[in-house]
Amino acid sequence: MFTYSRLLVHTVLGGLRAHCVRTRSSTLTLSQGRLWVNPQTRLWSCSRTQTPNTGPSSLSFRTHTCGELRSDHVGEKVTLCGWVQYLRQDLFIILRDFSGLTQILIPQEESPNDLKAVLCDLTVESVIMVRGTVTRRPAGQENKNMLTGEIEVLAENVEIFNVSKKLPFEIKDFVKKSESLRMQHRYLDLRSSQMQKNMRLRSELVMKMREYLCNVHGFVDVETPTLFKRTPGGAKEFIVPSREPGRFYSLPQSPQQFKQLLMVAGIDRYFQMARCYRDEGSKPDRQPEFTQVDIEMSFVDQSGIMSLVEGLLQYSWPAEKGPIQVPFQTMTYEEAMRGYGVDKPDTRFNMKLIDLSEVFSSTEIEFLRSALAQPGGSVQAICVPSGAELSLVLVRADGSLKSPLKKLLSVSATDDLLQTTGAKPGDLVLMAAGSLHTRPLLGNLRLQCAELLNSRGVTLRDPSVFHFLWVVDFPLFLPKDDEPEQLESAHHPFTAPLPEDTPLLYTEPHKVRGQHYDLVLNGCEIGGGSIRIHKASEQLHVLKNILREDPSLLSHLLEALDSGAPPHGGIALGLDRLVSIMVGALSIRDVIAFPKSFRGHDLMSQAPDFVSEEDLNCYHISVKWPPDKSTRW
Amino acid sequence: MFTYSRLLVHTVLGGLRAHCVRTRSSTLTLSQGRLWVNPQTRLWSCSRTQTPNTGPSSLSFRTHTCGELRSDHVGEKVTLCGWVQYLRQDLFIILRDFSGLTQILIPQEESPNDLKAVLCDLTVESVIMVRGTVTRRPAGQENKNMLTGEIEVLAENVEIFNVSKKLPFEIKDFVKKSESLRMQHRYLDLRSSQMQKNMRLRSELVMKMREYLCNVHGFVDVETPTLFKRTPGGAKEFIVPSREPGRFYSLPQSPQQFKQLLMVAGIDRYFQMARCYRDEGSKPDRQPEFTQVDIEMSFVDQSGIMSLVEGLLQYSWPAEKGPIQVPFQTMTYEEAMRGYGVDKPDTRFNMKLIDLSEVFSSTEIEFLRSALAQPGGSVQAICVPSGAELSLVLVRADGSLKSPLKKLLSVSATDDLLQTTGAKPGDLVLMAAGSLHTRPLLGNLRLQCAELLNSRGVTLRDPSVFHFLWVVDFPLFLPKDDEPEQLESAHHPFTAPLPEDTPLLYTEPHKVRGQHYDLVLNGCEIGGGSIRIHKASEQLHVLKNILREDPSLLSHLLEALDSGAPPHGGIALGLDRLVSIMVGALSIRDVIAFPKSFRGHDLMSQAPDFVSEEDLNCYHISVKWPPDKSTRW
Repeated sequence: MFTYSRLLVHTVLGGLRAHCVRTRSSTLTLSQGRLWVNPQTRLWSCSRTQTPNTGPSSLSFRTHTCGELRSDHVGEKVTLCGWVQYLRQDLFIILRDFSGLTQILIPQEESPNDLKAVLCDLTVESVIMVRGTVTRRPAGQENKNMLTGEIEVLAENVEIFNVSKKLPFEIKDFVKKSESLRMQHRYLDLRSSQMQKNMRLRSELVMKMREYLCNVHGFVDVETPTLFKRTPGGAKEFIVPSREPGRFYSLPQSPQQFKQLLMVAGIDRYFQMARCYRDEGSKPDRQPEFTQVDIEMSFVDQSGIMSLVEGLLQYSWPAEKGPIQVPFQTMTYEEAMRGYGVDKPDTRFNMKLIDLSEVFSSTEIEFLRSALAQPGGSVQAICVPSGAELSLVLVRADGSLKSPLKKLLSVSATDDLLQTTGAKPGDLVLMAAGSLHTRPLLGNLRLQCAELLNSRGVTLRDPSVFHFLWVVDFPLFLPKDDEPEQLESAHHPFTAPLPEDTPLLYTEPHKVRGQHYDLVLNGCEIGGGSIRIHKASEQLHVLKNILREDPSLLSHLLEALDSGAPPHGGIALGLDRLVSIMVGALSIRDVIAFPKSFRGHDLMSQAPDFVSEEDLNCYHISVKWPPDKSTRW
Repeated sequence: MFTYSRLLVHTVLGGLRAHCVRTRSSTLTLSQGRLWVNPQTRLWSCSRTQTPNTGPSSLSFRTHTCGELRSDHVGEKVTLCGWVQYLRQDLFIILRDFSGLTQILIPQEESPNDLKAVLCDLTVESVIMVRGTVTRRPAGQENKNMLTGEIEVLAENVEIFNVSKKLPFEIKDFVKKSESLRMQHRYLDLRSSQMQKNMRLRSELVMKMREYLCNVHGFVDVETPTLFKRTPGGAKEFIVPSREPGRFYSLPQSPQQFKQLLMVAGIDRYFQMARCYRDEGSKPDRQPEFTQVDIEMSFVDQSGIMSLVEGLLQYSWPAEKGPIQVPFQTMTYEEAMRGYGVDKPDTRFNMKLIDLSEVFSSTEIEFLRSALAQPGGSVQAICVPSGAELSLVLVRADGSLKSPLKKLLSVSATDDLLQTTGAKPGDLVLMAAGSLHTRPLLGNLRLQCAELLNSRGVTLRDPSVFHFLWVVDFPLFLPKDDEPEQLESAHHPFTAPLPEDTPLLYTEPHKVRGQHYDLVLNGCEIGGGSIRIHKASEQLHVLKNILREDPSLLSHLLEALDSGAPPHGGIALGLDRLVSIMVGALSIRDVIAFPKSFRGHDLMSQAPDFVSEEDLNCYHISVKWPPDKSTRW
């Protein structure tokens, strides 16, 4: 029987050879049933071509990846592994791996191992190993569009690892396929150069973030449980039955409670790439599980967290995307709503909301008058530059309006309107009058106009620009939709009030602003955080007297705050969203290896799936089938 | 209203000041209701004492941690934040944070801010910030047992962040408390210096592992779903009801299928610190969720993975634990069972199993004869050095045996026995005769003897030694316990056979050895992996013809293997177990921030918890209460 004698060999030959010896020599190769055109090659390759000690080809059968050979390598013996991308005229194979493509030259002369016949029989997407010599392509045959276009590899030996059957779609970037087909065969879809790039960029980004947090700022990576207990109001939490009748775990929407408890525990600086769960049924572009960069610090204020996050993004930002400037722009919630009609403004372009209430303060136009008379009533507008492209209401070249309003407006009112909005000929002015919803309505129109203009060739937003923005000073509480007398947390019940607003907690809580900060990138909210309440009495007041929640559900947190809690705060960044904006993906599904469909299905494995009654028994649950299954399905 | 003018300020003063400006000056401090003994201090501290740009005190209220001040710092103004560890004679406060302790000197003279009265009123574990000057301790009052024992800090200002109530136990290393009390108040338990150390060592280890995998060997960190589908035989998988009647997700025991699919997808080198789930009810020292270092590579053989893991552990091993030697010792399954009676031998000490079948081949002793006559029958022994400490069967100083066997053994047989076992006076020889279970029995006794000897002061195993061992060439299939004619996978159905054993798959599958490797540390299995089957036909044969599983449950994997699958293999290391051995913890609960109890409960939050019928409705399930609740509880 084969005996491992690595220790001895290692000493004599050094680390590299030890690796070869463990391969159990060439007999292994043969008995494994692989088609080794030249079975001696493997042993020889161990002693002749060197696998690098580090980098993407270390410890591997190959010596190089398919993307790295250049004219410098001409004359070298190399071993490549990869997928057959094309076969060309029985002369060339294009071999692909994650790093790129290399042209393999098929020897045309007859050989004892019949290399040509073997290679020309291959199907695309078959997996092979090729050993050969790097040669310079004949003059005029270089391919400038290919990183390895100066060279080709003259094949000397080939091993066929696996022959591919005909696939449901070709692995070529120009081949369009439906998303459901992509999801069903995700292991093929991930072979595309774009998906390879997305997965690798994500991994590198996360690695840099960890370096920054751990190595630069002394953060501790702590894993928190995902089998937890329902949080108050946690209606969107998945549940997991336990073996005790009636008792369920809950998959948390975020490690919020744990990160605060870790601060009470003196961990001082915590972070985690935290898997979070949210059961929202089928909202577009939401995933039932997602990842957040979860951060919490003790003895810090809002500015400290904001600086940390700016440094984090600057440090980890991919070089290919160009540098980002810090500090980021900061805007209050009030400013954002006033200027953009939304709490996550896309500040890559202007087209801000303009208040025309003054212009129309003494207007005779009935609907504007009644709008202004409402509580909080106003007349708002946006001026769409080059809005003529959209051929709606607009300012003509002669300065007159093309609008149903025209005949209702005096000359001076028109002048006033044009001056206030700054509208120039060819611009479009969109106005809305009414109460509180006027601004969000125009805010939405503003984005739609930018989208429309874009589709007509007018670019307001440079797609290569990344514009970060902090939004601060949010209201701490908002009236409940269905019960406006009752307040609910704008974000969550643990957010501390602004110091200067703290006394209002006990008198006019609806006026309190929170120490909450949202991070917005190109009009998408990619993170949010706050300084937390660190005094038990204040937290109890918020839960019990303002939110009217049952504080006993959070008794462990309240007790922790009473046991020496430091001041603390943190943030959570949505990693999937951040990466998707970074790579310009339309959906976060393009930056997740195995995402779920809109309906929460894994189209590849058919999860979720039926479970037998028998398997449910140990969890003491049974399925309540709807009365008429056919009507549901 | 306060306006953020950071951009301007940043340009003028540089990054550090920007941080201060964002703090909103000292008015913030006052209105936040903190007891600032000298409210001017904060503003002043911004302009005078510098928070470092990097390291554990960056971006923080403090300038230094409680563990870092030395005599070099004498004369410096510093700000420390932490917990009150002791109050001594109204003269000193010992302030603690994660990094250590610092002595704070309370000024004794009367001051306008009445510092002494404020400080002497504090309870232990209250959280404060102290500003003061580092001074050298008077000669003779240095404390050599304290890293900061050369200095103390003369307090000038103090802010009290939170006053602690009386706690259920003291945060002192010498205070013993029950595990259930520790778990119930985990946020206090984590304040102990040992738990702080464990959490930080774990975080640093994981960071180094990531550096090695990503930066040295080009691995891609890919997150795989935890809401998945039941795997065949996945009886230990938690289930998660979906909103579709009767359909459930499953929380996977490992990302096995996903990592293989990622190889088919051309990801080439994957790793993940993967959260895994296993519902085993209440097995001691198991956790329903745990973490594995999950690795998979394409175009690699067993030796490649083994070298990778050796390099990984060497690179990430904490310096304080001393270097580890690679390559690790390797042993076949057969050798392990023969020499140690177990597939995860503790090779820190010898005391190997000795086969005495030869010695007793012509014995007249009836029970030995009948044992040897059985199929696979043998007589096995271990020789316990200094076994006299255990005062059982043993070898006397005169070379005679103290044993019931004595009168049955001839002089020559006794000599033979002593020679074969190498037993010396004072040693204990333990023998067992029988069939297949003889070795595991003695293997177990071997460990118990080492434990017993240890308790009597005879140390066989140096507690500071880490002995890694690879165990290889496991059988690929084992007979099922309840149905010995039927085979089941020794590890999992995806393990490839040894190349030389592959033909046996189709003829004598019970004889096939797998390309599986276990990593053992000090007698604990801390990892296992294999080269996987990469041909669909071979995988189908194993599932259908050998294991008699329904292959349709794995149709996505079979189809993937048929679509151009590269040869691949990998490993998973149990992170919790590895760290617990590293730090010498008795339980993996000591290296997990918020572990579950034996019964799978979170004693702090009382998870799992009851969920209302109403909340179960959307999942179309109901609880089947046991007929008589009282008998269960």
